[in-house]
Amino acid sequence: MKITTEIDKMQIFSRIIKKDNKSIGFVPTMGYLHDGHVSLIKNARKQNDIVVLSIFVNPLQFGPNEDYERYPRDIARDEEIAKKEGVDVVFYPKYEDMYPEGFSTYVEVPELSKNLCGISRIGHFKGVTTVCAKLFEIVKPDIAYFGQKDAQQAIIIKKMIEDLNMNIIMKILPVVREKDGLVMSSRNVNLNDKERKDAAALYQSMKKAEELYKNGERNTDKIVDAVSSLIREKETAKIDYIKIVDLNTLKDLDRIKEKALLALAVFIGKTRLIDNIALGAEDVWS
Amino acid sequence: MKITTEIDKMQIFSRIIKKDNKSIGFVPTMGYLHDGHVSLIKNARKQNDIVVLSIFVNPLQFGPNEDYERYPRDIARDEEIAKKEGVDVVFYPKYEDMYPEGFSTYVEVPELSKNLCGISRIGHFKGVTTVCAKLFEIVKPDIAYFGQKDAQQAIIIKKMIEDLNMNIIMKILPVVREKDGLVMSSRNVNLNDKERKDAAALYQSMKKAEELYKNGERNTDKIVDAVSSLIREKETAKIDYIKIVDLNTLKDLDRIKEKALLALAVFIGKTRLIDNIALGAEDVWS
Repeated sequence: MKITTEIDKMQIFSRIIKKDNKSIGFVPTMGYLHDGHVSLIKNARKQNDIVVLSIFVNPLQFGPNEDYERYPRDIARDEEIAKKEGVDVVFYPKYEDMYPEGFSTYVEVPELSKNLCGISRIGHFKGVTTVCAKLFEIVKPDIAYFGQKDAQQAIIIKKMIEDLNMNIIMKILPVVREKDGLVMSSRNVNLNDKERKDAAALYQSMKKAEELYKNGERNTDKIVDAVSSLIREKETAKIDYIKIVDLNTLKDLDRIKEKALLALAVFIGKTRLIDNIALGAEDVWS
Repeated sequence: MKITTEIDKMQIFSRIIKKDNKSIGFVPTMGYLHDGHVSLIKNARKQNDIVVLSIFVNPLQFGPNEDYERYPRDIARDEEIAKKEGVDVVFYPKYEDMYPEGFSTYVEVPELSKNLCGISRIGHFKGVTTVCAKLFEIVKPDIAYFGQKDAQQAIIIKKMIEDLNMNIIMKILPVVREKDGLVMSSRNVNLNDKERKDAAALYQSMKKAEELYKNGERNTDKIVDAVSSLIREKETAKIDYIKIVDLNTLKDLDRIKEKALLALAVFIGKTRLIDNIALGAEDVWS
């Protein structure tokens, strides 16, 4: 397994691979790998000649009062997991190389970035699309792998790839959950015992919403209220948002007619967690 | 010479060329070719295996009160010139393929887009960088050719290429002028006889500025005043801006210490013309 922090080396390596007519599967991450990431890597491993894993805690996608400093990091452990899963290249660029002094170009999908996480995390998705545009240019993947956990992010990146004619196939893989249903997230490590228990309410509330939907409920207020009251029962929970939106436009819905996305963000203690579920669709991408 | 309007065909063609280890020189234009464009094509022809010329009057870079409709077009004549100059592929995509319904991704270099033409042409450079990002993904050039005539545009695209790690060399070629010094521009065709004569004042004023600079003048107000009064003499001229800015940051200068750019935009009748000259530097890129 190659490990490099150098953008030039990564770019040259990818060019050689492509000239060799080999395919590159790319898993971009912020590190502190969990089974959600491993599922992406395993898929990339199956479907490509070469697997590149990037690890970069991207400051551009964190707001001034967010958890950039607190975001967990353990590169040694990540390298071990990558090696075990058969990754060919671990690319973890340096901050000062990704954003040198005077850096000033941004990629944005404003229409899809306004709602949901875009409301409380101003500039977050601009940071995400900008870093992905850069990583795509450096790694030159044939297929890029993302998790449905970050549904809005995935929808936005998919749009960017289409709109900018990037020659990349995007694969979105299902959410991977803990036994009690909590979405796997690098941030879960920041939860204390009580918070960890309370956090399970997120998944329980999603299941409740699904049940209501299956029983014919289409009024989004009613579904959101049910989700909300289940979460409010937990002492450490503070709701950022719970919304049901159109799966394509990400705009708020009063009633569910076609494919919809129920998405939420909840602070459990100081840790902001997200979850989502597709309603009226098998998954977010069908 | 191949001619295609189809994005997919262009993209597949470029991929084949690259797999063949051949280089692609790319000249993106809005058509109605003049000797400025021809100079770009000739350079591309010398330095690459394959030359791609794109023709696309990009609506995204025109404001609502600008001359998108009035912009001159003559594809048959353009094809003739392209053929004569040994272009391999003319790519002129359709509006609805470049910006299909729901298009919503934008590339921006806000810091460099605020001054000069960015003041009166809101959103212009965002349109330029977005279309160039798309064209680069479609054509996959090794070298892209631009004219120094559009100095701010060239500086912004160069920044985008660097910041987004695009694997493209950018070449900026000198301004090509008519006999009386007027910058070659597709828009010159819109000038009537009187306007055409008046338009020569732009170059004369630049030469005046250069003379003042060479004689030791470093106060930008004094140089701008001299330029301004030469242009104001012309009946059909209405100044949009005349500015001296830092060549890297494009920020206004009180005094010229290092490399500077004198840039102006002037309406001659209804036609907005631009010109520029580097002061304290051999050209805009040195």
